[in-house]
Amino acid sequence: MNEKLQWLRNKMNSLNLQGMIISNPINIKYLTNIEAEGTLLITRKENIYITDARYIEHVHSTLTLYDEIIVYDIKDVSSDDYENFFMFCENVGFEENFVTYAKYKEYIRKYKINNLVETENIIEKQRMIKDEEELENIKKACAITDECFKYLLGYIKAGMTEKQIADEIEEYYKERTEGIAFETIVASGENTSKPHAVPTERKIQDEDIITIDMGCRVNGYCSDMTRTIFVGKVPEEVKPIYDLVLKNQLQVLKEYKEGAIVRQITKMVENDFKLNGNHSLIHSLGHGIGLEVHEQPYISSKGENILRENMVVTNEPGIYISGKFGVRIEDTVQITKFGCIKLTNSEKNYTII
Amino acid sequence: MNEKLQWLRNKMNSLNLQGMIISNPINIKYLTNIEAEGTLLITRKENIYITDARYIEHVHSTLTLYDEIIVYDIKDVSSDDYENFFMFCENVGFEENFVTYAKYKEYIRKYKINNLVETENIIEKQRMIKDEEELENIKKACAITDECFKYLLGYIKAGMTEKQIADEIEEYYKERTEGIAFETIVASGENTSKPHAVPTERKIQDEDIITIDMGCRVNGYCSDMTRTIFVGKVPEEVKPIYDLVLKNQLQVLKEYKEGAIVRQITKMVENDFKLNGNHSLIHSLGHGIGLEVHEQPYISSKGENILRENMVVTNEPGIYISGKFGVRIEDTVQITKFGCIKLTNSEKNYTII
Repeated sequence: MNEKLQWLRNKMNSLNLQGMIISNPINIKYLTNIEAEGTLLITRKENIYITDARYIEHVHSTLTLYDEIIVYDIKDVSSDDYENFFMFCENVGFEENFVTYAKYKEYIRKYKINNLVETENIIEKQRMIKDEEELENIKKACAITDECFKYLLGYIKAGMTEKQIADEIEEYYKERTEGIAFETIVASGENTSKPHAVPTERKIQDEDIITIDMGCRVNGYCSDMTRTIFVGKVPEEVKPIYDLVLKNQLQVLKEYKEGAIVRQITKMVENDFKLNGNHSLIHSLGHGIGLEVHEQPYISSKGENILRENMVVTNEPGIYISGKFGVRIEDTVQITKFGCIKLTNSEKNYTII
Repeated sequence: MNEKLQWLRNKMNSLNLQGMIISNPINIKYLTNIEAEGTLLITRKENIYITDARYIEHVHSTLTLYDEIIVYDIKDVSSDDYENFFMFCENVGFEENFVTYAKYKEYIRKYKINNLVETENIIEKQRMIKDEEELENIKKACAITDECFKYLLGYIKAGMTEKQIADEIEEYYKERTEGIAFETIVASGENTSKPHAVPTERKIQDEDIITIDMGCRVNGYCSDMTRTIFVGKVPEEVKPIYDLVLKNQLQVLKEYKEGAIVRQITKMVENDFKLNGNHSLIHSLGHGIGLEVHEQPYISSKGENILRENMVVTNEPGIYISGKFGVRIEDTVQITKFGCIKLTNSEKNYTII
């Protein structure tokens, strides 16, 4: 059986679950590599994937014998079949953070389950720790993001619009990967003061500050990087803010390692921002990244998470001066036993185009 | 109070609901025009929208006094506030088809609700009937879709790839609307035999058949149209299939009216397909369209829906000959008392480029 399904079976065993219904397509992709619409059932003896005619062929071409997954066309599953799947199961797990209340009631009715049990994101928590193949995909996505950024430094010229640059990034990614991992942010001038700015028709001007937040997807896995760059020169008023953000971003890289407590690291940045000009960190310091751009662990001053080897997380402090400008610098980073490995490696010192 | 909220209050009254929690952002957009992350509460006396700092300013700029909605920043809402919102409510409704099981339990705990009641898509059902403003938006989206199709007839040339054409459609829409309403389908040659084909690098050839399924969004409202066109000439083997699909598409337009039973209309098409060459209708005949591309009513041989005045639905019969070619012809249509109004009006007879 494939290793991820074997892991899940062991985990279910330890939680006294004899069966589980997995409905979240991202968790199904993680466990089986299947990308389709359907439901994965882990029963006492079998792994079953129920889908419909549109996907049967594609699903079969994805799976190998080694996966040990039986594929059903939903139109061939009788109500007796549904009742038999979990017949001798005392407790059956489900994804309470994904399944709607209506579906929850349908599962109980259809599968005749006595105890449908919440599983508290067991799969999402396992997804935090990346295996070699997953790391390989993220590394590729990060490398292409670095290349794209290098290309942009030659491409961006005064007179271009933010949208035009965002479209070029999308095009660059489309030709080399599965495309953008999230809506690219290209913000210039005052627009950089909004952390979630949407690219506009504003034209890049001389002495502009530009924030670019970009990432792509390789085999489903994401990259995420932000750089703040300058046209012609670095405005004097921006320098102290840029230096403060960069100083903290570099300090966080030193703190990121197995065992580090995310709350403490975030507090450190918040305190340093307060101390040096009374600035606030208005978004989280980072987040896990993998099959989703934003996934566990979330790195904020509220989180109880502890970093573990082979988690992949972002490190993205930012300061935003309302109506004036903003600076954010972000890397995607792999946690190791004694430190961390930066997976995005674009220049972070003042970059002038 | 705005009319849609007033409608909801009347509806709640008739269902003996003293309060309701609305979480589905599309339903919130429908009722209030708000596009943000947050929750709408209908309490005995007030309409309350709870959001966070990122959206407060934007939400205030969307609402008018006439809406009678009080906006809260979630960080200012105390646990006492939550308990007070539905204090004297016997039954509080929620969206069981949107809210996860985990959220359902959180609502009960946080709001201290005695009876959290399923509401069986009351808002989705009301959304089926479009008011004048909604119709206006859909009509605009359809008109721009017709214009785009006309533009394409001059644009498409042998040698271009499917992707290139899909990108051009996206660009066309981007410049004039909020962009595509769904991933555009451009399928050529054999690829037309897959109803959900994704645009590929395949180049358009002489004597190709091309299926284009496209739509855009105006103020959130969607259009949806499919045409099957030809390069140079109509292949002899395609003609009888094209004629059969078109004949049925035109017949359905005659059947679409207030009071029509969707099951019967679909059966009519299925029977005619069977009778003339033993073809099957492998997807539904149509679907409602509005803030979502696919919404109620679904038009299939399983549905119990009856068409009503000012529903907007698609009419999209198609036949797919595996490994060879496929033909689909689709319009977006407004139902009226004694018939229907086609909102997309592009040519449907053999169109040769």
